[in-house]
Amino acid sequence: MLGYAFMGKAHSNAFRKIEYMTWPPPLVPRLIGIAGRNEEAVRGAAERYGYVYATTDWRELVADDRIVVFDNGGPNSLHAEPTIAAAQAGKHVVCEKPLGRDADESFEIWRQVAATGVKHLCAFNYRFVPAVRLAREMLEAGELGEIRHFRGRYLQDWGDDASLDTWRFHPDEAGSGALGDLGAHVVDLARYLCGEIATVSGFAKTFLPDRKVDDAVEAAVEFDSGAIGTIEATRLALGHRNAFQWEINGSKGSLMFDMERLNELQVFRDDGDRARGFKTVLVSETSHPWWQHWWPPGHIIGWGETFVHELHHFLGAIANGTDVAPYGATFEDGYRAAEICDAIVRSGERGERVTIEYRSL
Amino acid sequence: MLGYAFMGKAHSNAFRKIEYMTWPPPLVPRLIGIAGRNEEAVRGAAERYGYVYATTDWRELVADDRIVVFDNGGPNSLHAEPTIAAAQAGKHVVCEKPLGRDADESFEIWRQVAATGVKHLCAFNYRFVPAVRLAREMLEAGELGEIRHFRGRYLQDWGDDASLDTWRFHPDEAGSGALGDLGAHVVDLARYLCGEIATVSGFAKTFLPDRKVDDAVEAAVEFDSGAIGTIEATRLALGHRNAFQWEINGSKGSLMFDMERLNELQVFRDDGDRARGFKTVLVSETSHPWWQHWWPPGHIIGWGETFVHELHHFLGAIANGTDVAPYGATFEDGYRAAEICDAIVRSGERGERVTIEYRSL
Amino acid sequence: MLGYAFMGKAHSNAFRKIEYMTWPPPLVPRLIGIAGRNEEAVRGAAERYGYVYATTDWRELVADDRIVVFDNGGPNSLHAEPTIAAAQAGKHVVCEKPLGRDADESFEIWRQVAATGVKHLCAFNYRFVPAVRLAREMLEAGELGEIRHFRGRYLQDWGDDASLDTWRFHPDEAGSGALGDLGAHVVDLARYLCGEIATVSGFAKTFLPDRKVDDAVEAAVEFDSGAIGTIEATRLALGHRNAFQWEINGSKGSLMFDMERLNELQVFRDDGDRARGFKTVLVSETSHPWWQHWWPPGHIIGWGETFVHELHHFLGAIANGTDVAPYGATFEDGYRAAEICDAIVRSGERGERVTIEYRSL
Amino acid sequence: MLGYAFMGKAHSNAFRKIEYMTWPPPLVPRLIGIAGRNEEAVRGAAERYGYVYATTDWRELVADDRIVVFDNGGPNSLHAEPTIAAAQAGKHVVCEKPLGRDADESFEIWRQVAATGVKHLCAFNYRFVPAVRLAREMLEAGELGEIRHFRGRYLQDWGDDASLDTWRFHPDEAGSGALGDLGAHVVDLARYLCGEIATVSGFAKTFLPDRKVDDAVEAAVEFDSGAIGTIEATRLALGHRNAFQWEINGSKGSLMFDMERLNELQVFRDDGDRARGFKTVLVSETSHPWWQHWWPPGHIIGWGETFVHELHHFLGAIANGTDVAPYGATFEDGYRAAEICDAIVRSGERGERVTIEYRSL
Repeated sequence: MLGYAFMGKAHSNAFRKIEYMTWPPPLVPRLIGIAGRNEEAVRGAAERYGYVYATTDWRELVADDRIVVFDNGGPNSLHAEPTIAAAQAGKHVVCEKPLGRDADESFEIWRQVAATGVKHLCAFNYRFVPAVRLAREMLEAGELGEIRHFRGRYLQDWGDDASLDTWRFHPDEAGSGALGDLGAHVVDLARYLCGEIATVSGFAKTFLPDRKVDDAVEAAVEFDSGAIGTIEATRLALGHRNAFQWEINGSKGSLMFDMERLNELQVFRDDGDRARGFKTVLVSETSHPWWQHWWPPGHIIGWGETFVHELHHFLGAIANGTDVAPYGATFEDGYRAAEICDAIVRSGERGERVTIEYRSL
Repeated sequence: MLGYAFMGKAHSNAFRKIEYMTWPPPLVPRLIGIAGRNEEAVRGAAERYGYVYATTDWRELVADDRIVVFDNGGPNSLHAEPTIAAAQAGKHVVCEKPLGRDADESFEIWRQVAATGVKHLCAFNYRFVPAVRLAREMLEAGELGEIRHFRGRYLQDWGDDASLDTWRFHPDEAGSGALGDLGAHVVDLARYLCGEIATVSGFAKTFLPDRKVDDAVEAAVEFDSGAIGTIEATRLALGHRNAFQWEINGSKGSLMFDMERLNELQVFRDDGDRARGFKTVLVSETSHPWWQHWWPPGHIIGWGETFVHELHHFLGAIANGTDVAPYGATFEDGYRAAEICDAIVRSGERGERVTIEYRSL
Repeated sequence: MLGYAFMGKAHSNAFRKIEYMTWPPPLVPRLIGIAGRNEEAVRGAAERYGYVYATTDWRELVADDRIVVFDNGGPNSLHAEPTIAAAQAGKHVVCEKPLGRDADESFEIWRQVAATGVKHLCAFNYRFVPAVRLAREMLEAGELGEIRHFRGRYLQDWGDDASLDTWRFHPDEAGSGALGDLGAHVVDLARYLCGEIATVSGFAKTFLPDRKVDDAVEAAVEFDSGAIGTIEATRLALGHRNAFQWEINGSKGSLMFDMERLNELQVFRDDGDRARGFKTVLVSETSHPWWQHWWPPGHIIGWGETFVHELHHFLGAIANGTDVAPYGATFEDGYRAAEICDAIVRSGERGERVTIEYRSL
Repeated sequence: MLGYAFMGKAHSNAFRKIEYMTWPPPLVPRLIGIAGRNEEAVRGAAERYGYVYATTDWRELVADDRIVVFDNGGPNSLHAEPTIAAAQAGKHVVCEKPLGRDADESFEIWRQVAATGVKHLCAFNYRFVPAVRLAREMLEAGELGEIRHFRGRYLQDWGDDASLDTWRFHPDEAGSGALGDLGAHVVDLARYLCGEIATVSGFAKTFLPDRKVDDAVEAAVEFDSGAIGTIEATRLALGHRNAFQWEINGSKGSLMFDMERLNELQVFRDDGDRARGFKTVLVSETSHPWWQHWWPPGHIIGWGETFVHELHHFLGAIANGTDVAPYGATFEDGYRAAEICDAIVRSGERGERVTIEYRSL
């Protein structure tokens, strides 16, 4: 594990829970080493989460033959080099989103890691919310018909504090602000649920005087399929803590979702019933994604469990030789999200609609 | 009254209710004449709503000296000529939105009517929802601080019926589709609540094969104030009947609204309270806008009452010599909304961000 | 009309709207006379609502041969004598709920009015909410299966003001407090939707020191059908303005309702769908009760319109010689509600479950 | 651990998470032994959750000197003997609710365990929902004023399956049906939040023909404080999976809660603000109960985490010699809940209000 803070905690918890909550587990994780910049903090994390050792040099992890999976939860500026090195050392790699700080760096990570042949997962964990996966399954089965609209927005409000300092506000470490942090999630689910994005017309904006990264992004978008919609992300939507909300309208029905109520999916189907309306579906039935791991229906799960599902999926891919895609995000997905995020910035700078050209290997 | 269908009914009902629900009424409306194309239908409407006479020639109304207010609820193609003629005949004029079929026609209506000196109101009735007016008052009082975001979308689903025919689908009669019908409402409330719009980046789109007008519009927008956001309108959002939803985020708080629950306003204020969250405010207190006309708190009103408030405001302006603006929309507001709607189309056609230049008289 | 305040306004508005909103109206109401205690106030009401004359003596209305319908919206203590006198004078009678101040008085009103052969309606207007009527139709059609639970509560908070004085706080004028005012509504809808109530186990309670009537009632109830549930009413539920909420659980589905969102009905059906949940039904489709009178779907109506539906129903019964029951409440329904309300008080006083014995004519 | 099914899983997960999610943990749990009736199943559970050994004889656990805490998550019929034996062997004891199958058995468990001097906790885990604890803190601080109403209902629907068999339907193993399973939770939170219950007027009822335990209970209740309300529980409320809903009305405000949205608390305060309404509070701020263990605000937790908080509290009481009460439920609380549950049944059988007399040691 690289990183011991927010993501380090989320991933470590998931690795520990996979061992007994998913049964039988595809692989039984052993927590070998954890790396971080602050020696005292990383030692504390190793003790807390049960890693065999702590180190301030991630290269030690890369060189450790016992380590099979290298999980990168560090700041964005530390995604490229360690992840590529780990893959080149033959380790399967997980990397937090955004994959790189921009499309170029993301492409390079993908290119070099793909060349090694290891499994790679870009940790867009929201694909692993049961309600999101259920939505994907309904869409794949054609239950919503032809998709016409996607409107996605990721609203948080912690950015409204000028005194706050974190690597997430430093362009060199983060690459961008709300764009890569939140907007990338919206872009990834837009692609996951509605297919490839063709054009974007929008911009990024910084509101706070001394802020060095964007606070918000807005875009009108077109999909390859002909669907259209909006993508937004902001850290300045007061009252919203983690409101990643999206809605999809198709020719047969609609879906709505809000991450602050992540156990629920709103489902509308045009079935001719006199009692016509959106259903509030509590996604916790035994027939729902991943629910066999958890509790009786109605006993909801938390945000942290998305990582259990995600890493379980990745370990399963390693154990069984199956693909990470399409239900997990690969580094190609990480790169493509970055390409779209960059396009929004470019659209704003140039004052024009940008047609996205995706690079291939 | 010109028009006897949807809007003719809504306005006639309002004129009848003003007489006794608003007390004392600024003026007591007498319903003199109603005009429409279908002779039998317009005669039926006159009988139903109590007009003294019906006519298939709106010029008869214009020529009638007893008529003080000319209310145009006809198709968009019938907005310009009758409205201008009525104003030139010295009648105060109300005209349904969109004012004209495009910015040019709208500007011309405004120009010619303004020259006559009569009172004019463009019937953006949603300014007269108590929750919307309360929002405006909170914003004016600075309770939300500096505004950063506006996201507005007007979602309906009746357009998803290829067999349906109405003047609203004919470009010559309607001018545009979802854009002028629904998008204009979003644009008007955006301006009403957050100030002037500076740029738009977006497009309109038609989904149904034989549809001659747009089904949906999407835009990322910038306001003069520096606020940014999105504007959307669609007639293809299955499951939504009249979901005109908007949200505003400011530096001190946020507001959310949905027309399908028009008696409610969601209010967040960053007040340091440990119990932090959006309040669901039932806008029905005696201290709330227009509530003195209605019932005890909690006894909600309907969509139709917005016209009571609107026409009451207009009659008050006539009776008292006060301005229609800023709480009512004038023809200038009608024109400006059209300028923005046209800009969204132009943005789509040109593939570029459009900076809006408003014409003056 | 007897009464010019809250109910006088609500009924007068309804009579005026029936003439043109319901088309063709069963009868065209003419507003002849209005009676009330305060001479100036009743004269003002006559002028406002358009009655031909005002009087402080309701006997004048009873003696007026032009009057066909006598509508009693006065305080509860003025229900019995004028209503009976009007019926004996051959007028069809409407009386606000509760019918009398207790079961004995209510029975007597029913008995004497029934003997005259006129039409009678006890104004339980909530039967005339479209969502409530839709619920009744679904229940009648067996869509919910065998009913197991009814839980109804009417929550208001205006009673939490010790300085407030109104006839509703005077036992001689009101008979009871929250019980007759709010509890009677819950009892009526319980009967309307789930059938007759067999037993009650509960009590009434007064919280405010100088209050002379009950502030709240609580009861566990059993229905003839075998269903069980709770009935509650309070004027001390802070934050609730008009929250008449009820829920019904049957062997095939469930329904939920809240008067503060009276255009919505929550519907659950156990249909084996993987997307399982309550639908939020906006009861505003052309196929929904009374909606032919109003607007396009999604354009919601207000609380005041329930009286339009109710009095339209009553005028239809007069015009067509049809029955007020079962969709309208008759004086028998008014009496039965009173019998149940009395039983809750008696249950509390005696500390025992009370089996209700309904009197017949 | 006694029991390897639903509660065995929930408690085992909690013990494993305490070690690293609460930091530093008050004690580091080691999972020694797990007992159950089915040899294969209990062996599987030991392997899954990491217990040193499995046994079909709980006495083995009682005799094991390494075991400091005995956690009883077995069927209700297995609560008394093993729990008492474990306590008499000097182990601190946790016992799932309901404590015993009736008040007599519950009293006996309390009496005998209390005599040993060990710590005891009756696992009413819903006290450990952050929103519930926040409610308790607000109530203790007087923020809601004098409490007037509590209305609590626990609605599930899994009981509507005549073919289902589980120990929960066997009177000898379960003691009662919805009453002890769900009603006991309502009773416990009623007491936890509003103080002692004085009287109950209600009944239990069985709907399904061959069901041997109650399907539902209904009661009107009075508290020592003078507050009044209702308590309900049912396994036949179709559409509700785990809807433990309660509302409290006080003289200064109100609270509402629903376990299906357990991260939220609805808060109303009568603060004179023009924007008056219930706040939807996402209980996930760093200032909220237990949130220091989890994620950034808005990243919600699941039902399973209530056990983490509960057992963390119990281990803290052991480590620090502090009291389990009042924030945790002791066996006295378990007994008192049983006394109230029994009183509801007795009230139904006798057809009278029952004043509860609590036994003391």
